[in-house]
Amino acid sequence: MVGDGDLEQRLAALEQRVRDLEDHLEVQRMVNSWGPAVDTGDAEAAAALWTAEGVMDSDMSRLEGPVEIEAMVRGAGQQSLIKRGCAHVQGYPVIEVNGDRATAVGYSRVYLGTDDGHDVWRVSANRWELTRTPEGWRITRRTNRRIDGGEQARDVLHDALRSRAD
Amino acid sequence: MVGDGDLEQRLAALEQRVRDLEDHLEVQRMVNSWGPAVDTGDAEAAAALWTAEGVMDSDMSRLEGPVEIEAMVRGAGQQSLIKRGCAHVQGYPVIEVNGDRATAVGYSRVYLGTDDGHDVWRVSANRWELTRTPEGWRITRRTNRRIDGGEQARDVLHDALRSRAD
Amino acid sequence: MVGDGDLEQRLAALEQRVRDLEDHLEVQRMVNSWGPAVDTGDAEAAAALWTAEGVMDSDMSRLEGPVEIEAMVRGAGQQSLIKRGCAHVQGYPVIEVNGDRATAVGYSRVYLGTDDGHDVWRVSANRWELTRTPEGWRITRRTNRRIDGGEQARDVLHDALRSRAD
Repeated sequence: MVGDGDLEQRLAALEQRVRDLEDHLEVQRMVNSWGPAVDTGDAEAAAALWTAEGVMDSDMSRLEGPVEIEAMVRGAGQQSLIKRGCAHVQGYPVIEVNGDRATAVGYSRVYLGTDDGHDVWRVSANRWELTRTPEGWRITRRTNRRIDGGEQARDVLHDALRSRAD
Repeated sequence: MVGDGDLEQRLAALEQRVRDLEDHLEVQRMVNSWGPAVDTGDAEAAAALWTAEGVMDSDMSRLEGPVEIEAMVRGAGQQSLIKRGCAHVQGYPVIEVNGDRATAVGYSRVYLGTDDGHDVWRVSANRWELTRTPEGWRITRRTNRRIDGGEQARDVLHDALRSRAD
Repeated sequence: MVGDGDLEQRLAALEQRVRDLEDHLEVQRMVNSWGPAVDTGDAEAAAALWTAEGVMDSDMSRLEGPVEIEAMVRGAGQQSLIKRGCAHVQGYPVIEVNGDRATAVGYSRVYLGTDDGHDVWRVSANRWELTRTPEGWRITRRTNRRIDGGEQARDVLHDALRSRAD
């Protein structure tokens, strides 16, 4: 005979595990929404992925908050990439969810259209940091470094491994 | 004291959430099976991913139903790609499951072997539409547009964002 | 009125399904940890992904056990890739979990830094085999073949499809 208390405890444990799985997929979804937003020039959608204090820290630029992210998407640089045909594609990252915080560490590539195919313009290391808000997961920080043989990209990428040991 | 009715309701809710997660991974699996099927020339396996009414709508061709998909895989064009060494690699898409329907919107790349490495022949935007059948999830439509700076690819890719607002 | 026995059976079934989902994501995490380990030169982290009997069987080399994997990461070949800027990026594979065994079949790419972007040095077919250990999932074998138009890569990739029929 199984007691209700036992069932309730098992159910509660399972609810938490399912929530962890849902969080994992939702974090992945936020990371994967960045490319479609910037590659279609949807500045509002790109900005809406971030918290009000969100920081995009790249070796190319540093953007603080949704207003600067919107401005970047509307700016001449990004618009010229869009006209050429650009694809910001995230690799599947190593994701850690801890309560209301999450990190996703992995690779990204920017492909650019050419006359007869596509060039790989930029391959980078990324650490995405996210927080759970009343509206769902939002990005608080993205650290992005081109993989150019230098130490900075390796520092970012290595977090995929450090998190395993925690 | 917890009543059985409460437990039953929580269990039923959890069963639905687990089914959603399973559906998500199964949709991803169907999308990821396309590359191995066409890159190994397995025409039957490629066709078996689709419903009888499935449509593959690309800027390069339009294929209707499993018979035309099989014919494409066996055709001279695909066979010459296979001999050169081709890899149809899907990025992890933004997936929406709604009951017995699902969409997956994301990037794909076709890499082709060269003498000393690989070229990126084609980077595309994709919207996969799937339906749940008695045999499992099957593809009903794939819309595929090369990311060439034109509006068509952006229209496809933007569905990754529209679906969020639904 | 719902009996406790019914609830217990449904709960047990759900626990197994949740464990399957967790296994799937954990297998994916192991596969995705390989790139960050070898691209940052963390030989111990790379070796720790494998069982003591793990074999990495590539068309470029055959490594047996953690000691040989560590030596490869520290070796002149890998160190020169790291200095140039390398990114070993796995595509999202087709994953099968069967109890304490799992396979993941899919594509990988190695990108190398150049003066003005990145080259695609190598696109390969991969079959990863894993086993559940007391410390978690570990890799027992990786079969890796360059997609060069030859039959060997197609044999590896085709396992993504064969597993569907099992």
